[in-house]
Amino acid sequence: MNANFVDTRIPDVGKPRVIVVGGGFGGLELVKALRSVDVQVVLFDKNNHHTFQPLLYQVATSGLETTSIVYPFRKKFGKQRNFYFRLGEVLSVNTQEKYVQTSVGALHYDYLVLATGTITNFHGMQDIAKHSFSLKTIQDAVALRNRIIKNFELALLAPDDETRNAYMDYIIVGGGPTGVEIAGALAELKNRIFPKDYPELDLLEMDIHVVESGDRLLGVMSDEAGKKSQEFLEKMGVKIHIKNRITAYNGEEATFLDGTKMRTKTLIWAAGVTAKPLDGLPKESIVRGNRLKVNPFLQVEGFEDIFAIGDIGAVITTETPNGHPQLAPPAMQQANILAKNIKNILAHKPLKAFHYKDKGSMATVGRNRAVVDMGKFKFQGFFAWFVWMFVHLMSIVGFKNRFLVLMSWMWSYFSYDRSNRLIIGNLGQEDLPEPPKEKEKEA
Amino acid sequence: MNANFVDTRIPDVGKPRVIVVGGGFGGLELVKALRSVDVQVVLFDKNNHHTFQPLLYQVATSGLETTSIVYPFRKKFGKQRNFYFRLGEVLSVNTQEKYVQTSVGALHYDYLVLATGTITNFHGMQDIAKHSFSLKTIQDAVALRNRIIKNFELALLAPDDETRNAYMDYIIVGGGPTGVEIAGALAELKNRIFPKDYPELDLLEMDIHVVESGDRLLGVMSDEAGKKSQEFLEKMGVKIHIKNRITAYNGEEATFLDGTKMRTKTLIWAAGVTAKPLDGLPKESIVRGNRLKVNPFLQVEGFEDIFAIGDIGAVITTETPNGHPQLAPPAMQQANILAKNIKNILAHKPLKAFHYKDKGSMATVGRNRAVVDMGKFKFQGFFAWFVWMFVHLMSIVGFKNRFLVLMSWMWSYFSYDRSNRLIIGNLGQEDLPEPPKEKEKEA
Repeated sequence: MNANFVDTRIPDVGKPRVIVVGGGFGGLELVKALRSVDVQVVLFDKNNHHTFQPLLYQVATSGLETTSIVYPFRKKFGKQRNFYFRLGEVLSVNTQEKYVQTSVGALHYDYLVLATGTITNFHGMQDIAKHSFSLKTIQDAVALRNRIIKNFELALLAPDDETRNAYMDYIIVGGGPTGVEIAGALAELKNRIFPKDYPELDLLEMDIHVVESGDRLLGVMSDEAGKKSQEFLEKMGVKIHIKNRITAYNGEEATFLDGTKMRTKTLIWAAGVTAKPLDGLPKESIVRGNRLKVNPFLQVEGFEDIFAIGDIGAVITTETPNGHPQLAPPAMQQANILAKNIKNILAHKPLKAFHYKDKGSMATVGRNRAVVDMGKFKFQGFFAWFVWMFVHLMSIVGFKNRFLVLMSWMWSYFSYDRSNRLIIGNLGQEDLPEPPKEKEKEA
Repeated sequence: MNANFVDTRIPDVGKPRVIVVGGGFGGLELVKALRSVDVQVVLFDKNNHHTFQPLLYQVATSGLETTSIVYPFRKKFGKQRNFYFRLGEVLSVNTQEKYVQTSVGALHYDYLVLATGTITNFHGMQDIAKHSFSLKTIQDAVALRNRIIKNFELALLAPDDETRNAYMDYIIVGGGPTGVEIAGALAELKNRIFPKDYPELDLLEMDIHVVESGDRLLGVMSDEAGKKSQEFLEKMGVKIHIKNRITAYNGEEATFLDGTKMRTKTLIWAAGVTAKPLDGLPKESIVRGNRLKVNPFLQVEGFEDIFAIGDIGAVITTETPNGHPQLAPPAMQQANILAKNIKNILAHKPLKAFHYKDKGSMATVGRNRAVVDMGKFKFQGFFAWFVWMFVHLMSIVGFKNRFLVLMSWMWSYFSYDRSNRLIIGNLGQEDLPEPPKEKEKEA
């Protein structure tokens, strides 16, 4: 509807227009790969920057600056002649007339690529969605960082042990990579950082709980990885609750599957994601996890000019009945195949099918420890941690960011310090009760 | 009133308690200087970090990360045995019963030091206070950064030239150091950065206006400094309006003294500050600029146990009828004298009087240019810029921050780049009209 009075003002350059929706790993890689293709590339994103999601948990735990893991699109593609960017949200698509409706106007496409990724899946539990923290955006990370630090300032003022423990205890729901990594980072804060900052508090009172509904941690990885990560976390004092669930959370108290209750001011929800398909696409194209069913050429079921890559797309084949894992590597590999196929379409050549090369997966569990699966090779511990660091460092967008992250990591490693223990802005603090307010509530 | 149900939980360690209100340059230096004094030091601040205000304008103009110019108090003083911190605002003082009332409870003091600095002075103009940007806090800086970048994204969508220019034009009110430095930084963005980011826009359309009510820029500095800074800014295309004022601003249009109007979405208010004296202090102690009248021993008029240092205090003598300039150096020098005097009081020794050693003042005007006054020595240009950088670098709190700032500066200098062109969070964007909303307004 905005189209009535706003115009995206994307010029018609007389070339086929490829609209890319979302600048995550898939979208970013696709724009780059279309560099040399004779098309107009238009990227829409709600942010003016790419976010390196795998390290959001380090921002949340004061390990990294926000600016080290986000990168402005215009800086990245400033020199790319065929690149256009608009800051806005794509709201719907008209597949007959071939245009998208966005928050900043309507725009015709010749080829539409959906790379919008996923959002946190609260499985319809509104109370949890309202009161919990998640880790999908840089805002989420800053909000959680503010909350963690403010928790300790408030713990100092707590009128009784229960209230103090509610501020100091953490529940992480979901034992996947995100849950494991945030638990490890919180344990590092508990064991190495906060004792220096809060001599008035007994940090042994800080409990970190990980709740996993499956029968082990890191279900997406190997048994070894799962067992070792649990061993590492327990060594650091993290309490693991396997085959358990959180069924309710009101911001003060969480309820477990068996009805037991636990007080905490901070519940971190890392228990699954769901895609958000664009309005205007047929229901038939939507499969499990709200992903879009695409063929091996990444074309959305029923369309030749609409594609989906990354987490939102599911290449449904006999080998992959549920599509590929929702990780960066498949998204980036799909982006490169798609760029080639768009070139092929323009040249009336046959399309290439996508085949996923699984390079393995990994997760870090605090200082000096990680778990890595690489095909047959499965290893854990210090060397795995080193591999984890190297792989992530190399994947970060932008030389300066890579440099900043390396510096911060070296600094933290040798100084046993986290430099960014900052409460900045009121992001995520709106819902943070000040002690006086609390009292009013009770009254 | 919070004291009724919240307790600051500061233990009584059986030593004289010095409450320091505000962790700016003065407060920080005082806490440090009291390190070896046999007292309990309690710092109250609304933030959990010190802010290096002189570089806020570089955060606002994407030159520096927020984290490079803020520093957590607990990290700074973690090893200082007599240091206690509470995150909260001091609301009032009871001088009879000798306690302060804070947002996190009441607390008795033996010695109270007010170092709360100043807030922006809008001279009672509510519309300007509501719609303009200022540069006193890290939140201000991030809000302005978000706004500047969003302005250009919105300029791309502007339906007509007037609207586009309103997004691209800037009015800076106040030709003091802050106004001059932000103008210079905006000019750098206009000339070197944004042309790369926005090939679709003609950056010559970006106008930067500085409005100064006095008869020249940098009234606090020498004539040479004022003249040169104006010359530097005009070379960069900044328009200077001397002996002029902004009398009204509604968020869309600013009105000058002579009634002429100018459209802009961004008015930056750097036209003066005012102190905010604590409730409970006698009116007689409040002088020009809402500062507290203190004697050369920094005792607030009428008290022996309440002190004021930095911008909020005014040492009224025949030589300094209006107190000392509201800058970091006097604040820090006062902090050191006061620490000695508190020691002297405890030892029943006579108090030392404060004498300001003026080390000079400086301002930078974009790349390679600055103006410096050092007593008889007044110089401008490249060497002055070098001195400016060195002095600021050395004054930054924390080795890592110093290192990060140096790295960022070197990076920007050699790459002609600003790495932090980011819109993060919705800080300061609440009031940012989205194109659709705008239209509704018009309708």
